[in-house]
Amino acid sequence: MPDPDTQRKLIEILRILSESTEEMGARKIAEELNRRGYNLGERATRYHLRMLDERGFTKKHGYLGRVLTKMGEEELKHALVTDRMGFISTRIEDFEIRTTFDPVTNSGDVVVNICYVSKNDFDKAFGLMKRVVESGYAISPKIRVADEGEEILENDVPEGQVAFASVCSITIDGVLIKNGIPVNLKYGGIIKITDGVIQRFTDVIDYSGTSINPMSVFTSRKMTSIINVLDKGSGYMLANIREIPMTARDSALKLLDDLHAADINGIFSGCESVRPLLGVPIELGKCGIASYSGINPFAAFGEAGIKTRILPLAAVMNVRELKKME
Amino acid sequence: MPDPDTQRKLIEILRILSESTEEMGARKIAEELNRRGYNLGERATRYHLRMLDERGFTKKHGYLGRVLTKMGEEELKHALVTDRMGFISTRIEDFEIRTTFDPVTNSGDVVVNICYVSKNDFDKAFGLMKRVVESGYAISPKIRVADEGEEILENDVPEGQVAFASVCSITIDGVLIKNGIPVNLKYGGIIKITDGVIQRFTDVIDYSGTSINPMSVFTSRKMTSIINVLDKGSGYMLANIREIPMTARDSALKLLDDLHAADINGIFSGCESVRPLLGVPIELGKCGIASYSGINPFAAFGEAGIKTRILPLAAVMNVRELKKME
Repeated sequence: MPDPDTQRKLIEILRILSESTEEMGARKIAEELNRRGYNLGERATRYHLRMLDERGFTKKHGYLGRVLTKMGEEELKHALVTDRMGFISTRIEDFEIRTTFDPVTNSGDVVVNICYVSKNDFDKAFGLMKRVVESGYAISPKIRVADEGEEILENDVPEGQVAFASVCSITIDGVLIKNGIPVNLKYGGIIKITDGVIQRFTDVIDYSGTSINPMSVFTSRKMTSIINVLDKGSGYMLANIREIPMTARDSALKLLDDLHAADINGIFSGCESVRPLLGVPIELGKCGIASYSGINPFAAFGEAGIKTRILPLAAVMNVRELKKME
Repeated sequence: MPDPDTQRKLIEILRILSESTEEMGARKIAEELNRRGYNLGERATRYHLRMLDERGFTKKHGYLGRVLTKMGEEELKHALVTDRMGFISTRIEDFEIRTTFDPVTNSGDVVVNICYVSKNDFDKAFGLMKRVVESGYAISPKIRVADEGEEILENDVPEGQVAFASVCSITIDGVLIKNGIPVNLKYGGIIKITDGVIQRFTDVIDYSGTSINPMSVFTSRKMTSIINVLDKGSGYMLANIREIPMTARDSALKLLDDLHAADINGIFSGCESVRPLLGVPIELGKCGIASYSGINPFAAFGEAGIKTRILPLAAVMNVRELKKME
């Protein structure tokens, strides 16, 4: 019996094959997995396909193609009852658990978002990334850039493309939890900034009630105006907000300081005892910590007309693989 | 002191004026209100502006333009603390309360969605609407078509445009509540249909945790393939799901029958005691009622390349204003 994470990937591959009208190879399946938020490379997909073959759920068909067997169809039907679509909050918790970053020693794994752009757009994208970082709207100045052919996580960066990895704000939640503070990432949203001052959230989506990442919703609806914030100080940015118990306030503030010293920033409202906070309801006995989203630089790429493929909550990565932008 | 509904509209107008860089007239304000989900016509907007003028929150500026006064700015700041962005579920409850439709006498007000299209696209749109209705994927065969210049609710249909009004599935919730059944519209989502058979929800968003209407999220992300369902029996459609107490099952089923006799349909899973239902979690002691969304015909317009302006949950309308498609 594979672990739940592998199990989910296997089911998703069966689902992809069942939804396809033609036989599919590992590359196509990997692409579709990525589109659905599973960051699995071609090699890893091939490995998973072998596992499915061995169980008799899939079989080879044509040159490198795979199809579902009768048994695979049955397995999928059964799995679908228990493995329902899955809320984003479950995925978030998985990543919080996988965060091993220690701000004091500045080591361990952080959560990253990944964005693919064409090599032709690299200079423009890199310049924007730098501006977002320098203006203090990024989670961290530490990023990774992977060129075509280089491996980023389990993926080779496709020909003609470059991948950016940015620190995801979920890293903050992971560190809080690792240090014994119960944290609940509540809402992903849009904040309004006027003349460099944060005004309030103008839209939010509860992470626990959605199967689509709120950040993907806001970026695909083009609700940000990050470049305007960079140019003129006013506009709309991606942000999120988490709740911690009021009693954990002091230890949380200490951790946020440690994180700051380790170049993990982006918090613009930490543990103020205000309810609602910036227009967002906060539970009684809790306080809110609001931060920018690590997706902001990538949303800015999109605003500038750069074609992007954004994978929010893509993976964990050792902080040593990231380099500080100077 | 105006009622909460008017109060909200007044605040939204102040907000629009504060966010604008230029003076705005009633027409522009009405358009922006519509974009934000308030269905207020030019005339009604003018009436609201007069109320704001009288209180000293706005003043005339230039030819028919309005600007915010210092007092208006203060009022807005104060209001924003209490009048936060607002979740869609609040808006849904407002509309449930305003539903007065009685399926037995076939009279009273139903909730409608509205969609504006160009007159040039009318025939194509009308044909699609008819196909959705005839295939049983609409809430009701009763629709209203308003030509340019005609008044639909408080709006005149703009020149060169036609407005469609379709019955919104929230009408079902309104009728259940009016008859003493506590109902909770939980999720808006996407359902997968294969060979005419509903498979399961593939994505959902909790109405109580979002400030953006889930239906708008799914349509703007182009996640439907309604025309494919019409053509080939397979694809993805908009749907939603509500919970009622298991103990109200019998009276609910009776009401659903009455609704059916009164041409309000679209329910594809009524009170089955299955958990999860079609992949969606249902609370213990509750049962789920799943229905198509009244937005489906309008989403199909979009799929066919027709430029649409969709207002989900636009207003209530007397059922006598609607005409059955034959």
